[in-house]
Amino acid sequence: MHVEHLGWSRSGALRILDQTLLPAEERWLEIATLPALVEAIRSLRVRGAPAIGIAAAMGLVAALRFRAHGAAAGGAPADGTEGVAADGTTDAAAARAAFLALVDETAWAVGSARPTAVNLRGAMERMRRCAQANSGAPDAVLDALRDEAQAIWDEDRAMCQAIAEHGQALMRPGIRVVTHCNTGALATGGIGTALGIVLLAAGRGLDPEVYVDETRPLWQGSRLTAWELQRAGIRYAVQPDSAAASLMAQGKVDLVLVGADRIARNGDVANKLGTLPLAIVARHHGVPFYSVAPSSSFDPDCLSGAAIPIEHREAAEVTAPFGVPVAPAASAAFNPAFDVTPAAFVTAYVTERGIVHPPFEE
Amino acid sequence: MHVEHLGWSRSGALRILDQTLLPAEERWLEIATLPALVEAIRSLRVRGAPAIGIAAAMGLVAALRFRAHGAAAGGAPADGTEGVAADGTTDAAAARAAFLALVDETAWAVGSARPTAVNLRGAMERMRRCAQANSGAPDAVLDALRDEAQAIWDEDRAMCQAIAEHGQALMRPGIRVVTHCNTGALATGGIGTALGIVLLAAGRGLDPEVYVDETRPLWQGSRLTAWELQRAGIRYAVQPDSAAASLMAQGKVDLVLVGADRIARNGDVANKLGTLPLAIVARHHGVPFYSVAPSSSFDPDCLSGAAIPIEHREAAEVTAPFGVPVAPAASAAFNPAFDVTPAAFVTAYVTERGIVHPPFEE
Repeated sequence: MHVEHLGWSRSGALRILDQTLLPAEERWLEIATLPALVEAIRSLRVRGAPAIGIAAAMGLVAALRFRAHGAAAGGAPADGTEGVAADGTTDAAAARAAFLALVDETAWAVGSARPTAVNLRGAMERMRRCAQANSGAPDAVLDALRDEAQAIWDEDRAMCQAIAEHGQALMRPGIRVVTHCNTGALATGGIGTALGIVLLAAGRGLDPEVYVDETRPLWQGSRLTAWELQRAGIRYAVQPDSAAASLMAQGKVDLVLVGADRIARNGDVANKLGTLPLAIVARHHGVPFYSVAPSSSFDPDCLSGAAIPIEHREAAEVTAPFGVPVAPAASAAFNPAFDVTPAAFVTAYVTERGIVHPPFEE
Repeated sequence: MHVEHLGWSRSGALRILDQTLLPAEERWLEIATLPALVEAIRSLRVRGAPAIGIAAAMGLVAALRFRAHGAAAGGAPADGTEGVAADGTTDAAAARAAFLALVDETAWAVGSARPTAVNLRGAMERMRRCAQANSGAPDAVLDALRDEAQAIWDEDRAMCQAIAEHGQALMRPGIRVVTHCNTGALATGGIGTALGIVLLAAGRGLDPEVYVDETRPLWQGSRLTAWELQRAGIRYAVQPDSAAASLMAQGKVDLVLVGADRIARNGDVANKLGTLPLAIVARHHGVPFYSVAPSSSFDPDCLSGAAIPIEHREAAEVTAPFGVPVAPAASAAFNPAFDVTPAAFVTAYVTERGIVHPPFEE
């Protein structure tokens, strides 16, 4: 019943619903090259930590296939290396080595498109390991990579469902929820993470009501979350990001559900800009605040939030939304894509394994 | 040195710089009728609690003059009453009574244009008292009202200067300030309130740096505060309203300065939506938070913030900025213009009388 926004095209390209055009237009893109993939991730045509990981894995396969087909047609490997070995065995080994180098290089380029989401880095690492573990020729490696990308997607869909099921423990009839950014189907390969809990509850007749943070500067709440909620027939109101505190002061919020782009070992959460003030005002008003994410968002290599790199985006997102200048020309802007919420403000974490209360061991 | 945005036209109309068009266009409006005045206040062509009070008083005079001129030209009072008395004395008394009724009625209509700002109500009350205290004919009353409106403006200019002087106690070289909404010259009849402190400090060479909350949904920070700061050559960066917490977590904010639309007797502050979460995150990070406003913003009749009426504005401001839909059609929105910050989160209040620490007596 949830929105599908990812897929394979007939030719093996990655198909995505261009999220930058929602809700005005539903346009699908076919992505078959590395530059197109990096652009789509960087421009947020696909976004949401889990969805980025899935699209990156599928897009990596499409981009490698495009390069391989180029090589098949032209006779020379597309990466510019030449097959010089005298016997067939060495030739095959060289081709495989060249292909693995291409996988590494392409995966590195895709993985660098956005620095904060751990799923992106994780998906690329998993694809590289898959390629190295396969002893076949490039075509066999490519087939294995395609299966691996599909597995990443399928696992995420199952994870979303498991998260949503565990999250039902937080739901009750008529519950009033504040959400930030988009954590629904559009952010994942399944029903969603934080919003998935609400979508599942609505499907079971609990009639939740959602206050949707608009999520400046890119309006993922207004554009994407509201779109998903409207399609699902769930009651919602969009609000400026600064309005949640007023609602809480009036006793109108029962629960805050947000996602996570990366969770440090100590429980600090990097998530969409605006999560930190939401967590602080929730704590002040005694409103439970849950971070909802697959366990792959936990980064055991990252000791605390201070170690998480924060992507800073261009000023124009803030100063000229839709190209309409709202600030004087040449205004500087402070535009971090994420902020870090200390673990102390997180009531608990909802993952596919259950609801985890801090402190926790990974 | 600060921006002028209010004035009298040659014909006695109110002149205002249309703030809804800034920073793209500097267009002056002449306002000579009650409907035009109410529209200008309601549409925020003039905004900021002190500036609304001044423009309302000046605009009231212009609207009354327009009505009086209409009566002089047509022979019958414009309010539809007829002069029926037999002798001159009674006729004059009737004309005066009719004019005072017109003043009351017009002042009531202007005063209802926006419900939260106490200055607007206060200015209208002052104008009515001025009219009642004058024993002359309508023309003499009108002259007195014009002087009273000018006095309201002149007093505000002096108040701004006094506030800015007192506020210098909070300034130091290179200080990093977060502001919300616009509290500069454009919000007042002088140098401003909260931003006036920064403008004066910059004029004295302290080189402050300002982080400007964009202030959704109407971008008074991006559009107006940034415009004033750029003209004054002060370092600034515009930011989403949800970014201040990140800055504070990084230790990059020394001080928060905001205005006030109304301050209750217990010190609770009604101010632009977003002030409350800013106050809460400032307290959490140990950053001093000052509310800066003329003492006329204190409402002794209002016991606490719970008694302050909060204006709710139309959904389209949130869901379709500049007419561009960012949310699905027919989306509901929660769009209060103001929120209420409990006194406990306010470090102190800066007024024209000095810096006042709570608890205080009126």
